[in-house]
Amino acid sequence: MATYRDAGVDLDAADAVVDRIKAAVTRTWHEGVIGGFGGFAAGITIPSGYKNPVLMMSTDGVGTKAELARQARRFDGLGWDLVAMCIDDLVAAGTRPIAMTDYVAVGRIDIDVVSTIVRSVAAACEQAGVALLGGETAEHPGVMDADAFDLAGAALGVVEADAVIDGSAIRPGDVVIGLESPNLRSNGFSFVRMLLKQYDAFARDFADPDGDTAATLLEPSVLYTPAVLALLKTVDVHGLAHVTGGGLPGNLPRILPDGCGTTIDTSTWTPPPMFTALGDMSGADRAELFRTFNMGIGFAVVVPSNQAAEAVGVVETAGRSAAVIGHIEARSGVRLA
Amino acid sequence: MATYRDAGVDLDAADAVVDRIKAAVTRTWHEGVIGGFGGFAAGITIPSGYKNPVLMMSTDGVGTKAELARQARRFDGLGWDLVAMCIDDLVAAGTRPIAMTDYVAVGRIDIDVVSTIVRSVAAACEQAGVALLGGETAEHPGVMDADAFDLAGAALGVVEADAVIDGSAIRPGDVVIGLESPNLRSNGFSFVRMLLKQYDAFARDFADPDGDTAATLLEPSVLYTPAVLALLKTVDVHGLAHVTGGGLPGNLPRILPDGCGTTIDTSTWTPPPMFTALGDMSGADRAELFRTFNMGIGFAVVVPSNQAAEAVGVVETAGRSAAVIGHIEARSGVRLA
Repeated sequence: MATYRDAGVDLDAADAVVDRIKAAVTRTWHEGVIGGFGGFAAGITIPSGYKNPVLMMSTDGVGTKAELARQARRFDGLGWDLVAMCIDDLVAAGTRPIAMTDYVAVGRIDIDVVSTIVRSVAAACEQAGVALLGGETAEHPGVMDADAFDLAGAALGVVEADAVIDGSAIRPGDVVIGLESPNLRSNGFSFVRMLLKQYDAFARDFADPDGDTAATLLEPSVLYTPAVLALLKTVDVHGLAHVTGGGLPGNLPRILPDGCGTTIDTSTWTPPPMFTALGDMSGADRAELFRTFNMGIGFAVVVPSNQAAEAVGVVETAGRSAAVIGHIEARSGVRLA
Repeated sequence: MATYRDAGVDLDAADAVVDRIKAAVTRTWHEGVIGGFGGFAAGITIPSGYKNPVLMMSTDGVGTKAELARQARRFDGLGWDLVAMCIDDLVAAGTRPIAMTDYVAVGRIDIDVVSTIVRSVAAACEQAGVALLGGETAEHPGVMDADAFDLAGAALGVVEADAVIDGSAIRPGDVVIGLESPNLRSNGFSFVRMLLKQYDAFARDFADPDGDTAATLLEPSVLYTPAVLALLKTVDVHGLAHVTGGGLPGNLPRILPDGCGTTIDTSTWTPPPMFTALGDMSGADRAELFRTFNMGIGFAVVVPSNQAAEAVGVVETAGRSAAVIGHIEARSGVRLA
C-alpha cells in the first residue's frame, strides 16, 4: 500500500516543527493579537491612534543566501534577513510594520533546521515589534534536494493615509542620508556563489570552519525599521529607499520625482572589507558592484538639508551609523562620484 | 569582468515580467487601493462598516502541483490554486479576504511562464474581489533547475472581532455540509508524482497531449470564498474547515470543540473519477486516501440542522454543489462511515 509518507511528505515532522517553534512564535504575539496557534489563521487589531489607516503588504525572500546557509550549515541568521527584507520595504513607504507570515519550502523537513529558521524569523519579529501571525512549511520531495530550502515571507503594515511617503516631497537642495549596512544583507548572493565556483581560494576560505568568510557572508541583515520609525516621528522625511536588488542606483530612482536627481559621493563612507574583496576578486567595475550589492549603505533617507544633522543623530541614537552621502539636484538620474 | 547577469540573475527579464502583468494586476485594484505599481508597497483601506476590525493573514503555496505544471507546460491554473489555498484559509475563520501578495521562485525567468502564472493569480484575485497588492519574482540560478519554479503567497483579511469563527459554537446535533471539489485542488501532488514514477501507463497518459489526464490533474482549484461569504450573511455558521493537507480527517478536528465528534457518511457524495483512479492504482486504503486528498469535498461548513437546507441552497446559488455529509455527535474524533 502506498502512503503519503512513501511519497516523501512527513506530516508528523511538520507537527514536530510546530511544537519546537510554538514558544518563539507566540512571544511575538503582543496585546492586540487574537487567535490560537494551530488554527486556520491568527489576527491582529490595528494599533490605536489612526484616523484613516491604510494597510500595506510587502513580500520578499532571502534569495540564494539560503543556498550558502545550507552549505555552511548556519541557519540562525536567515530569519533576520527575511524580516528585514519584508518590513524594511514597508517602512520605506512610511508604514509601520505590524505583522508577518513566513513560508519555508524544503526538500525534506529537517526538524532542527526548519525550527532554527522559523525561530530566527520569530526573534527578528519580536525585536521589531511585529507579530508573526502564521507560517507554512512546504515539503517538496524530489523537486528540491533533500537539504535544500527556500525562505520567503509577507508583511503587513499600517500608515495614516496622508502620511504615506513616496518621494514626491523630495526637492532640490535636500540631502541623502545613508544608513550603514555592515554586510550584504540578502542581495547579491548569486554573484557571490558564482565567485565561489570560480575562485578556489575563496571557496576554501568559505569552507574553513575556523575562518570568518562564511560567518561574514551569512551575517544577518540589520533591521532598519526601528531607526526609520524614530525618524518619521522627529524629522520631516521627504523620501525613503530600501537598498535591495539593484543597489543604490536601482532603488533611488524609484523615489525621485521628475526633475530631481542625485549625486552619491562614494567617498563619504567606507564599504565593509567584504565588498572590497568581492570587487577585487571579480574585477567588476564600480557601477556593476553598486548595482549588485548595497556596498555598505542598506537604506537611504532624504530630508531637508537643515534637518540632516538631527536625522543623523536620531539614527545613531537608534543604534545605527549614518552619514550624508549625497544631495538632491535639479536634474534627473543617480550618479556615483 | 563579472556581472550579475553572468551569475544568472536577469534584472531586465524581471522588468519585462512587470510590463506583462501590469494590466492584470491593476485590474484587481478596486476603489480603496492606494499606491503606484512599481513602488515599494501598495495599500488598501479597510472596507467600511466594521466596528472592531481584526486583521488576519494566511500563507500557503501550491506545493508540487507546480512540478506537474512544469512537466505538462500548463501554467494558467496555478494562480487559482494559490489564491484558493490562501483566501479559503482566511474565510474558514469567518474572515473576508481583501488583499494578497504572491511570490514566484524560479531557476531562470521565462518571461512567458512567469507572466502567465502571475496573470492567473491576478485573475483569481479579481474574481474574489481581492486586491493583489504586490509580488516578488526571485531568480535562483544554479539552485533550482532553469525551468523549475515554486509559487507561494500570503493573504490579508478582515473580520468583525465578535464574528471570528473558530468552531467553538459547534454543538451535537449540528450537521456538516460538504462543498464539492471537482479536483485535487493543490494537495496530494507528491503522492501523484510518486504514482507517475511507479506506473508507466499513468505516466504515458499524463504525457499524452491528446489525453485529459494532465488537464484533469492540473485543473484549477475552486474558490470557496464567495459561497462562504454568502453563507456567513444568511445562515448561523458554527464552524468552517478548508480541506487541505490532511484531508477531512485532518482538518475537521481543528475546529471541533471538546466533546464533539463527527461521522462523515462517505455514501453521501461521489468522488470525481480521478480520486477513484488514484485509489485503485495505489492500493491505498480509504483512510490513507482521505488523509492525502480532499476526495471531492474541498470545504466543510457546520450549521444547526434546521438551517441545513437553507445553507445548501445558498451554496448552490453561489454556483457550487453541496450536501449534508455528516452529523456532529457528543463524542470526540472524526470517523468515516
